[in-house]
Amino acid sequence: MTDLVVSNAAQLATPTEHDTLEVIPDGAVAIDDGVVVATGSTDDVTRAYPPENAATAIDATGRTILPGFVDPHTHAVFGGTRADEFTAKLAGASYQELLEEGGGILRTVRATREASREQLVADLVAQLDVMLAHGTTTAEVKSGYGLDVETELKLLEAIATADERHPIDVVPTFMGAHAVPEGVTTDDYVDRVVEEQLPAVAAADLAEFCDVFCEAGVFSVAQSRRVLEAGQEAGLAAKVHAEEFERLGGSQLAASLNATSADHLLQATDDDIDALGEAGVTPVLLPGTAFSLGAEYADAAAFEAADVPVAIATDFNPNCYSQSMEFAIDLACNGMRMRPAAAIRSATRTAAAAIDRTDGTGTLCEGAPGDLVVANVADYQHLPYNFGVSTVRTVVKGGEVVHRE
Amino acid sequence: MTDLVVSNAAQLATPTEHDTLEVIPDGAVAIDDGVVVATGSTDDVTRAYPPENAATAIDATGRTILPGFVDPHTHAVFGGTRADEFTAKLAGASYQELLEEGGGILRTVRATREASREQLVADLVAQLDVMLAHGTTTAEVKSGYGLDVETELKLLEAIATADERHPIDVVPTFMGAHAVPEGVTTDDYVDRVVEEQLPAVAAADLAEFCDVFCEAGVFSVAQSRRVLEAGQEAGLAAKVHAEEFERLGGSQLAASLNATSADHLLQATDDDIDALGEAGVTPVLLPGTAFSLGAEYADAAAFEAADVPVAIATDFNPNCYSQSMEFAIDLACNGMRMRPAAAIRSATRTAAAAIDRTDGTGTLCEGAPGDLVVANVADYQHLPYNFGVSTVRTVVKGGEVVHRE
Ligand SMILES: [Zn+2]
Ligand SMILES: [Zn+2]
Repeated sequence: MTDLVVSNAAQLATPTEHDTLEVIPDGAVAIDDGVVVATGSTDDVTRAYPPENAATAIDATGRTILPGFVDPHTHAVFGGTRADEFTAKLAGASYQELLEEGGGILRTVRATREASREQLVADLVAQLDVMLAHGTTTAEVKSGYGLDVETELKLLEAIATADERHPIDVVPTFMGAHAVPEGVTTDDYVDRVVEEQLPAVAAADLAEFCDVFCEAGVFSVAQSRRVLEAGQEAGLAAKVHAEEFERLGGSQLAASLNATSADHLLQATDDDIDALGEAGVTPVLLPGTAFSLGAEYADAAAFEAADVPVAIATDFNPNCYSQSMEFAIDLACNGMRMRPAAAIRSATRTAAAAIDRTDGTGTLCEGAPGDLVVANVADYQHLPYNFGVSTVRTVVKGGEVVHRE
Repeated sequence: MTDLVVSNAAQLATPTEHDTLEVIPDGAVAIDDGVVVATGSTDDVTRAYPPENAATAIDATGRTILPGFVDPHTHAVFGGTRADEFTAKLAGASYQELLEEGGGILRTVRATREASREQLVADLVAQLDVMLAHGTTTAEVKSGYGLDVETELKLLEAIATADERHPIDVVPTFMGAHAVPEGVTTDDYVDRVVEEQLPAVAAADLAEFCDVFCEAGVFSVAQSRRVLEAGQEAGLAAKVHAEEFERLGGSQLAASLNATSADHLLQATDDDIDALGEAGVTPVLLPGTAFSLGAEYADAAAFEAADVPVAIATDFNPNCYSQSMEFAIDLACNGMRMRPAAAIRSATRTAAAAIDRTDGTGTLCEGAPGDLVVANVADYQHLPYNFGVSTVRTVVKGGEVVHRE
């Protein structure tokens, strides 16, 4: 008895170790005990694993099987909403003006401190539901709207509880160094992150990564280094918000620390890109952020020219409110002008690398976790071609159907 | 007995004669005999029309009621797909190169000529289903992939049949002057449009509008004028694809002919905008086209500065493959930087004006057609704020629930 067989798909498309995207016509996949046991043509797979002997069999005629999407950069747990600021920005208000009026990130911090842990769990689970419906089966979620020990722990506990309650695998990142709270100098706040928050987070074993917003006016390279090195000493791998608005040096910092990822990278130079590639740091591009700002996209072509594969992510947060990796793929193609095969790899295999999931996550190779999407398109290229419309119809996590339309 | 009452909505938001968007908290609407009989607060509406006396009652707690979306510019009926050209363009191929390789619009013309009328109907109905699921209740559909009498008639017949079979009101436009077929001069082709196609279309009473692609290298202003004047003589109101790539003069042509709409308008000048406004021609902006090309958007702010309200549309076609007016609203805000209230008006009341539906279509004012959307947002601003994700949950056409998630 096999757990799941999906067959007769117009295509099965998966990144592999050697191919950006391997496309198998009339494709099929079999999953047993949570992992992929066979991937190939329907003939080959169903001969070894007959659908009639499977606990669940899905006929994917006319559809395309893809690996489940991996979202390696979200700030998905927070209190409140900022839809009104969206309108204010469209009416011409600057982020600085919104901050001065009590808006921006510190408004979310206030709402998050006021929210109960259970409310945060419920809200996060609701967001994970939207992510799942758009094909995400693994997602990183950062803390960082607490900015004090108590609330950062509350956020990471909410992430852990949501992970237990929801089919999506949630990967927790501690990001106390997301912003500087009111009434404290940046140096003093870095002290608190390193001396109070990090030890508490590590003691509670609530985070796998430590991230920092390395940006002019927020945390300097030296301050970022201090936070990330302290994180590494506490067993947390490093991630860096780097070169978003100015080229401050976050990429070189990430390379020198062998960070797992460096994210945003709009102002990264060719030298930065090479340094990331040589150090094995996965670059993460966030096209939704540019889209919501009406701004330029990161230069995906420069990474391709340097032969450094990028991941893409939603950057879902109150200031970039989109939970959909499917739409991130649309943006990667239509906005950043990546080809569909490269965009899908960025949303799957390379995205998994950006959160250190190198067990085959983001692929449908044999032995990989049994996470997949069945999309209502007869060709993988059709997914970003049909932009702004969801084509995900079935989502499977660990061999179990967890979403179906 | 009322046909339908929707009540307890966090907001009901509708454009009116005087307001860009009137927002009623705790809103409700009642529909009887296909038209809106009451719009207001839940208290007021349900006192006059108790939900318990309605054939259908919808509790919209936590949700927002909007008018059904109107898509005033689509090329939704065609044979084949061009997903592979999407990839070729991302790999750097120019439209001219694709044309020379037998791709582009003439490829769609070949596939459309080969398709049976029944296949075209089935395909169009499937596209209308996707449109409806994203809130569209009225849509214009153009012919224009036939470029000969027989196929243009086949397309318009397919549109008429799809209109009968589908809840969406479909408004037919004849666009024989969409491109010039191979092996014929433009002047000779204009002769065929005017002397063969138009009389056949008018005799069969299959179109309400006549449209022309007035663009450098396609149809000149003089050729466009000839087509549109012949259309008007045959009883078809005028629409113009104007100033998309070059400022050729399509706007002034539209103004001089009192056309119903002028569409695209990326290169329109302030004089063009004023001329459209004075002549009562509705400008239609198509942000999806720019998005799919990775190009600049039309200058919505220039129209706002001139106090000339614009409509938005999907421009759904094989080269701009998105059926969703909900996503067009996302693009109007995030891309063209319109405010949410203005974007929603553009997708409803002004969009209705662009297809000459001035009976209240695109509003929820008393007497308007009973077409509405219930979106899973507590504030209308949240719809474009949550970009790339559909929030439409219920769609009502003429008082009947025609889509529900
Ligand atoms: Zn971030
Ligand atoms: Zn058009």
